[in-house]
Amino acid sequence: MKGLEVFLDGDYADVRAEVRERLRRPELAPAPADIDLDEYRERVMDQARFIAAEGGSGLGFPKEYGGEGDVGASVVGFEMLGHGDLSTVVKVGVQFGLCGGAIYQLGTEEHHDRYLADIVTLDLPGCFAMTESGHGSDVQSLETTATYDPDSEEFVIHTPTESARKDYIGNAATHGRIAAVFAQLYTGDDKHGVHCFVVPIRDGDGTPCPGVEIGDCGHKIGLNGVDNGRLSFDHVRVPRTALLSRFGDVAPDGTYTSPIEDETKRFFTMLGTLVQGRISVSGGAISATKNALTIAVRYGLSRRQFSPPDSHGEVLLLDYLAHQRRLLPKLATVYALSAAQQFLVRGLHDSAGNPDYPARERRKLETHAAGVKALSTWHASETIQTCREACGGVGYLSENRLGQLKADTDVFATFEGDNTVLLQLVAKELLTDYRDEFGELDTLGTIRFVADQAFDVVVERTAGRQLIQTLIDALPGRDEDASVRDRGWHLALFTFREEHIIDGLARRLRNGIENGEDPFDVFNRSQDQVLLAAKAHMDRLVLEQFVTTVDDIDDDEARELLDKLCELHALSVIERERAWFLEHGRITGARAKAVISAVNELCGELRPHARALVDAFRIPDEVLAAPIGVAPADTPSGS
Amino acid sequence: MKGLEVFLDGDYADVRAEVRERLRRPELAPAPADIDLDEYRERVMDQARFIAAEGGSGLGFPKEYGGEGDVGASVVGFEMLGHGDLSTVVKVGVQFGLCGGAIYQLGTEEHHDRYLADIVTLDLPGCFAMTESGHGSDVQSLETTATYDPDSEEFVIHTPTESARKDYIGNAATHGRIAAVFAQLYTGDDKHGVHCFVVPIRDGDGTPCPGVEIGDCGHKIGLNGVDNGRLSFDHVRVPRTALLSRFGDVAPDGTYTSPIEDETKRFFTMLGTLVQGRISVSGGAISATKNALTIAVRYGLSRRQFSPPDSHGEVLLLDYLAHQRRLLPKLATVYALSAAQQFLVRGLHDSAGNPDYPARERRKLETHAAGVKALSTWHASETIQTCREACGGVGYLSENRLGQLKADTDVFATFEGDNTVLLQLVAKELLTDYRDEFGELDTLGTIRFVADQAFDVVVERTAGRQLIQTLIDALPGRDEDASVRDRGWHLALFTFREEHIIDGLARRLRNGIENGEDPFDVFNRSQDQVLLAAKAHMDRLVLEQFVTTVDDIDDDEARELLDKLCELHALSVIERERAWFLEHGRITGARAKAVISAVNELCGELRPHARALVDAFRIPDEVLAAPIGVAPADTPSGS
Repeated sequence: MKGLEVFLDGDYADVRAEVRERLRRPELAPAPADIDLDEYRERVMDQARFIAAEGGSGLGFPKEYGGEGDVGASVVGFEMLGHGDLSTVVKVGVQFGLCGGAIYQLGTEEHHDRYLADIVTLDLPGCFAMTESGHGSDVQSLETTATYDPDSEEFVIHTPTESARKDYIGNAATHGRIAAVFAQLYTGDDKHGVHCFVVPIRDGDGTPCPGVEIGDCGHKIGLNGVDNGRLSFDHVRVPRTALLSRFGDVAPDGTYTSPIEDETKRFFTMLGTLVQGRISVSGGAISATKNALTIAVRYGLSRRQFSPPDSHGEVLLLDYLAHQRRLLPKLATVYALSAAQQFLVRGLHDSAGNPDYPARERRKLETHAAGVKALSTWHASETIQTCREACGGVGYLSENRLGQLKADTDVFATFEGDNTVLLQLVAKELLTDYRDEFGELDTLGTIRFVADQAFDVVVERTAGRQLIQTLIDALPGRDEDASVRDRGWHLALFTFREEHIIDGLARRLRNGIENGEDPFDVFNRSQDQVLLAAKAHMDRLVLEQFVTTVDDIDDDEARELLDKLCELHALSVIERERAWFLEHGRITGARAKAVISAVNELCGELRPHARALVDAFRIPDEVLAAPIGVAPADTPSGS
Repeated sequence: MKGLEVFLDGDYADVRAEVRERLRRPELAPAPADIDLDEYRERVMDQARFIAAEGGSGLGFPKEYGGEGDVGASVVGFEMLGHGDLSTVVKVGVQFGLCGGAIYQLGTEEHHDRYLADIVTLDLPGCFAMTESGHGSDVQSLETTATYDPDSEEFVIHTPTESARKDYIGNAATHGRIAAVFAQLYTGDDKHGVHCFVVPIRDGDGTPCPGVEIGDCGHKIGLNGVDNGRLSFDHVRVPRTALLSRFGDVAPDGTYTSPIEDETKRFFTMLGTLVQGRISVSGGAISATKNALTIAVRYGLSRRQFSPPDSHGEVLLLDYLAHQRRLLPKLATVYALSAAQQFLVRGLHDSAGNPDYPARERRKLETHAAGVKALSTWHASETIQTCREACGGVGYLSENRLGQLKADTDVFATFEGDNTVLLQLVAKELLTDYRDEFGELDTLGTIRFVADQAFDVVVERTAGRQLIQTLIDALPGRDEDASVRDRGWHLALFTFREEHIIDGLARRLRNGIENGEDPFDVFNRSQDQVLLAAKAHMDRLVLEQFVTTVDDIDDDEARELLDKLCELHALSVIERERAWFLEHGRITGARAKAVISAVNELCGELRPHARALVDAFRIPDEVLAAPIGVAPADTPSGS
């Protein structure tokens, strides 16, 4: 159905079509499940080279380095690659997104000239060496040091302890020749915080550079086509210009200068430029989820089990209410997340390279990227698991790909920011109302800030403000008078929940501080509320994006279907969270039961369209590659 | 702590100790993650042979066939093996439990004499060929035929369609020499329903027998040490005595006789004898869950991340409330499931080979086995996934075993009965009140039966009736006056929920039928309630078993700890289901919030004991085999 495709394509139908065609090429076929580790790594490297040769690697880089200068297109292209082998997607992400991105975002023109063209062609394979064995989420506490030696005008990169070893580094075990290494910068006796340095790790023959010890993380749950490794540095010397110096530079004599005086603020500004990575992971998770749903829904429409009494045929799995309930709300939510993902891509596109982009909006983008990443990667894990179970024994066979999808996406909840930590980041921004001057606040600072405020949350509207306010305003005075399927009611409930949780959390933190309690204890005792606040915020944002994106669709038939899908998404969230609404007196028990019935009803209404809803993803059979999931002959899949 | 060990050991401390020691042997070390498929299959076959040679295979068989005649010990031994390589566990289950079990339970002494001794030694590797490509859960609709030919006094085993192919059959692809084949029995023009036949599939050299086509299911998500395959039969002739004839026999002239006249009832009686398989899967899932929790809890007690403000050290992961909330309620629930599992083992032990065991009690055992299997396998999937995420990046490395645990246990939700189908079975038994005369009812029959009843659920008490009634009776008149941590209150809530849901479901079904609606539609529209009824029943049963088992512990310190664990388990279920209690006016919003607070409080109280709680599982390091999870030097693990 054309309107569904318009909805899913967003602003980048051409990029999506191009990648979709590329994924049909035999060079990009997903690897067999029993492939040998070394062979898999080489195969994935070849696929990354193929993508680079086809012009798929440089979309986000400036034209002078072989790119196309369109960061939005770059992220969408990455998302679409997520329908294919996820090892290749991550390899591409490490090389072009993380390593190339660090050099592009944290370096100066000199660094761009030195590296970017070779990064884009993959002639210079690179790593992104941030995480250490002892510190992943807490980047500010990294232990690797970079000490400036003014005599030789060099930095000395060093791994002082075992926990300072760079760990899980993609591209490190086999292919990488350089690494963007994050380390604590020292000049003389002064510490300037975490900065990034380009450090050669292997020469052209693949021999590790002197002082660089390279380990191999070995076999992993998934993504075994990516050569994750470990890097230790024994007083490795690099020239002064190895420092990516956009946000902090060291003069030959050792004088440190930075356009951002405060060290913590500088740190967050530097990290903020890397927002693209999180948006990319979210896109990859959404694509993998679509693969799984396509397989499971098509299987549910072909497999029959049990004959109803007095009948002559067996029942299709997807005609059972329980089966619909497993798959259809998750299908609705992946449409919702697709709309949220497009919103992030637009924000990234508008802000990238725009020095006039408001700081507050930039912080919001970072927060929303963190939140959508957490939601979409958890949704991927749950959905793929559900799809596996919904396909029974045949879903357990590797040839049907659900296992690979599960295994590969599993770590998405951890890398590019652990989901739990990311949600805390979201909550912190909500509590400090995205104020730039509080960007550098640590947990204690956040809590003290909250304690000092006459706190009253004013939830920002991210999009379609007028539409959404109109929908809410049109509601009757009492909840019980609104239809349980009224979209305005859904929005009102989501907004109420968000505001109420954040207000309550702020009050709770403030009371703790005022009572003289230890700030960490205050925070820790409320940690479940902190996470809930972040989720409630993101739930509301995702729904708003779904609503406004649907509203833009011209095709009446498709919009009607998307409206139902939007209702199902909203009501399934309300159903999941109905205890909270009941506890806070916002809905009655009877109303809560009506929500459950409405979810059942919508499952029945959407059942006849299930096939169209997954066909609209247009995933090429060549990468779907599941015998139980490929489009039947009468479906023009991927066309 | 000794009392915890007593609780976990139940009646079989000696069997557990023996298997625990066996698991330390290098012969039973878990396979490396990147092992080649063929090599893995041989390794697992060797491990199964080792277990047989050590006397671990025959516990449940009569002494005259090399066994020990203790079916309870056999199931407990299997559960304990679940701490080791799960491929080996499943291989052992197929050979001794399923194939040997079918011959033992469905055959006569003649069959026992012919096969059992060689099954127990593994000299005769066998398959359990029930599932077909087209029919897994719906065993009554199997399509394979066994047609009696009175002229030659043989059965002709035949695969009439592609969907009749036996599929996912363990031991079939490589090692099996015989198969217990389930097929529709025909004599002349008469059909007698599904029966089981011993069919040779390979000769001593491993060559497939004439007319037997053997396929290979290839690589799977997990359990790749098990050689799952496909069997098709092209008019394969077997002697008349190949029919396992305990419940139905064919005389040389083709006359069919059976001690059970009704075909459906006969079918369920035959299937019922295979209850041991489900209890075994449940045990395996519980053991694997304990492995994952041991790894994640120990890691959470060694890994630090983030410094609290104004402090000098980083915080242990398990000191964060959110981390406690992820792991500790799941740890409490695995203790609860361990108690429920012991209850099933006792029931199996008491009923096995006892012709005087009441039919109603036997049906209850089958129902409880189905329900505990569903709960424990889903709990395994969720918990292992949570443990993986709780271990971050290092949890994603194969060497830390969480991936293998996830992948191997994943299919537990599907095999030996799909969990969703099993819960429907539980619900059906609840609705028909375990009446033996309704055992043969199909869905239509069940609904019609319900429609005819003045339905009023009297929930049976499975154990500790007096203790539990006393606890409930001691409650104050109003819920709000009971402490939220009062065990009687928990039991009263679980019981109320169970009764109310079953009553409501029965009413709903009856109304549908009385209104002349199509029975399938009536059933299907209520399918979510059907599943909920089964879950509520099983939740109550598991809690009761936990309560009564804790009550038997003499060690005061351990019992106090187990009491808290029991509270945490009960309250986390109430928290999860609190929307239902709110909707049905059983608790107030304030009370629901108090439940959430109590869960937080209990997490804090149990945190200091987390180490003792996982150490009590005494999983040998040799099979835990996770560098991040092995017991630190000061812990006498597995001792």
